[in-house]
Amino acid sequence: MSGTADPKLTDLPLRPELKGEEPYGAPQLDVPVLLNVNENPYPPSAAVIADIGRAITDAAASMNRYPERDAMALRDDLARYLGHGLTTANVWAANGSNEVMTHVLGAFGGPGRSALTFAPSYSMYPEYARNTHTEWLTVPRRPDFSLDVDLALRSIAEIRPDVVLVASPNNPTGTRAELDQLEALCDAAPGVVVIDEAYAEFARPGTRSALELLPKYPRLAVSRTMSKAFAFAGGRLGYLAAAPAFVDALRIVRLPYHLSAVTQAVARVALAHAPEMLRQVDVLRGERDELERWLQTTGLDAAESDANFILFGRFADRHQVWQQLLDRGVLIRETGPQGWLRVSVGTPAENAAFRDALTEVLPTAERAGDE
Amino acid sequence: MSGTADPKLTDLPLRPELKGEEPYGAPQLDVPVLLNVNENPYPPSAAVIADIGRAITDAAASMNRYPERDAMALRDDLARYLGHGLTTANVWAANGSNEVMTHVLGAFGGPGRSALTFAPSYSMYPEYARNTHTEWLTVPRRPDFSLDVDLALRSIAEIRPDVVLVASPNNPTGTRAELDQLEALCDAAPGVVVIDEAYAEFARPGTRSALELLPKYPRLAVSRTMSKAFAFAGGRLGYLAAAPAFVDALRIVRLPYHLSAVTQAVARVALAHAPEMLRQVDVLRGERDELERWLQTTGLDAAESDANFILFGRFADRHQVWQQLLDRGVLIRETGPQGWLRVSVGTPAENAAFRDALTEVLPTAERAGDE
Repeated sequence: MSGTADPKLTDLPLRPELKGEEPYGAPQLDVPVLLNVNENPYPPSAAVIADIGRAITDAAASMNRYPERDAMALRDDLARYLGHGLTTANVWAANGSNEVMTHVLGAFGGPGRSALTFAPSYSMYPEYARNTHTEWLTVPRRPDFSLDVDLALRSIAEIRPDVVLVASPNNPTGTRAELDQLEALCDAAPGVVVIDEAYAEFARPGTRSALELLPKYPRLAVSRTMSKAFAFAGGRLGYLAAAPAFVDALRIVRLPYHLSAVTQAVARVALAHAPEMLRQVDVLRGERDELERWLQTTGLDAAESDANFILFGRFADRHQVWQQLLDRGVLIRETGPQGWLRVSVGTPAENAAFRDALTEVLPTAERAGDE
Repeated sequence: MSGTADPKLTDLPLRPELKGEEPYGAPQLDVPVLLNVNENPYPPSAAVIADIGRAITDAAASMNRYPERDAMALRDDLARYLGHGLTTANVWAANGSNEVMTHVLGAFGGPGRSALTFAPSYSMYPEYARNTHTEWLTVPRRPDFSLDVDLALRSIAEIRPDVVLVASPNNPTGTRAELDQLEALCDAAPGVVVIDEAYAEFARPGTRSALELLPKYPRLAVSRTMSKAFAFAGGRLGYLAAAPAFVDALRIVRLPYHLSAVTQAVARVALAHAPEMLRQVDVLRGERDELERWLQTTGLDAAESDANFILFGRFADRHQVWQQLLDRGVLIRETGPQGWLRVSVGTPAENAAFRDALTEVLPTAERAGDE
């Protein structure tokens, strides 16, 4: 090993497929109105904060000991929250959906195996595939971002993917799939199917969850997160429901003690306050619907959203619009197909700030396809 | 996908190399004296617990927001703790050394690449290799568990491993490598070298850390953990020091927001109390030395330990000895080479309980090699 005290990244024997890659992540900017990463704008109430303080003070007293490795109490709480007759053995939990999905691809994907999803979709999915050496394949959605089920079924028959991954409601489009569509994918898939329901709680009333399909499909998993509806993005808790054997497969690839005692304790407090958290979800749904209507009045396209964000456009130069909103103190996200932008649903005041800023920007924003 | 409502694991398309695997982990048993997983027996003081409570109450107020993705403040604290002129850019942190090492093998190991270590060593290492699809190779240590440097150098020259991984002090043997030995490995290694110093704080006074070698070797990393000396196993915080470009490589493979706001906040409190934590390390070192002397008076072999545990033996039937100790309320670990057992150093009372139990068990415990 030669002695260059301060090497460049190119001097190090990085894996070839990682060369030139950048760490993933939205810009972390200090801006008054943060509508860029689909956070829930409502901080925990004083009651929740006090309960968290108490729970951590209890947990801290045995911080010298490793955490309960199987997180049984937390998984039990999550099963109760999900309902649908699920029990502890049906539930898996990890440090965010990122880690949950890495466990899924570690157990069922990997070298020589493939995963299929429907583009545009969540920008982290290819990173999960890259990290697990799973071949990453996409087929397009329809122009309105709904699933193209015929194309999906033909693609599944042809590709025979080991993993089919569908976000519903989808990110960054907000669009949901119908249960019969997901059922058709499950019927066709030769391997495992993961329905990513990170935003499920924001779906319109009456929307049916893929959790209903679990009793019928042994190779189906439904993933969720506490980051969004539970306003718990800082706590990093993703989870998944599936058959107990599916969960056992994930337990083989998880590294032991993956969930800290602190994470387990704090997540349990948030779950105990589920009714309070879900009342805010109702408020956010109302704000979303109002924001969607408003966007349409401006003549912009807005994808029909069942999530806590809206994809809107299309602009000839979306980066310019993004920058002009940022100049007015409103940070949204430059993501999704060319010409579109994504705005998270905030508090009424934040949404008003976004509307005001966009109103200022729109007259000079050239629309894509306009002549 | 056929509809078996409750599949067996063998019904699922698990990756072939995972078939028949069991989730890793020591038995989690409810026993009065826990000396099995090298935990620090001293819980946080009331002052530390109170500070943790305050820090989490602060962090909880913005729990709806994603954590600071690069954990700069925590990494800055860790750099200050390590000293040796290290700065934030030299330090990486993740959810336990498990995740740190997975990042290292993800960036520098992986399919078509190999990692070499010196057996017996930490039982998690092959799991890191398995999860990252890195070829896993070992060459033996000497009979006294010290590094066989000549053999190591010949093996490195022959195998040309992409990663060389050395634990010092080593687990489960407790034995340390000397700095000139590690330097010889760094000189010979064609790829990256990781010195795992999880137990460094327990080494005898005057032991030199591989941190001293960092300015000389751009492809060297030194990993540490807060689980042991900091009595923070429940908090799950592993870290590593290396050149900034080495850290940049790990940032490419890490999934964003891998460290929760809670983990960052609690770890910073523990670090702020480093002097208090390290006073207990002194007590544990004294207990370890006394326990090692006592084991030798029983006629048993005890490996020379620079860690907070001792490997001792050898028994014709180590499982029987393990069980008889457990029957007396003392849980130790059945790990390491055949015939050996590992005991963690506990409080004086716990160590006395272990000595009393072993004194009862020894008369009927057949030694390995005895006729």
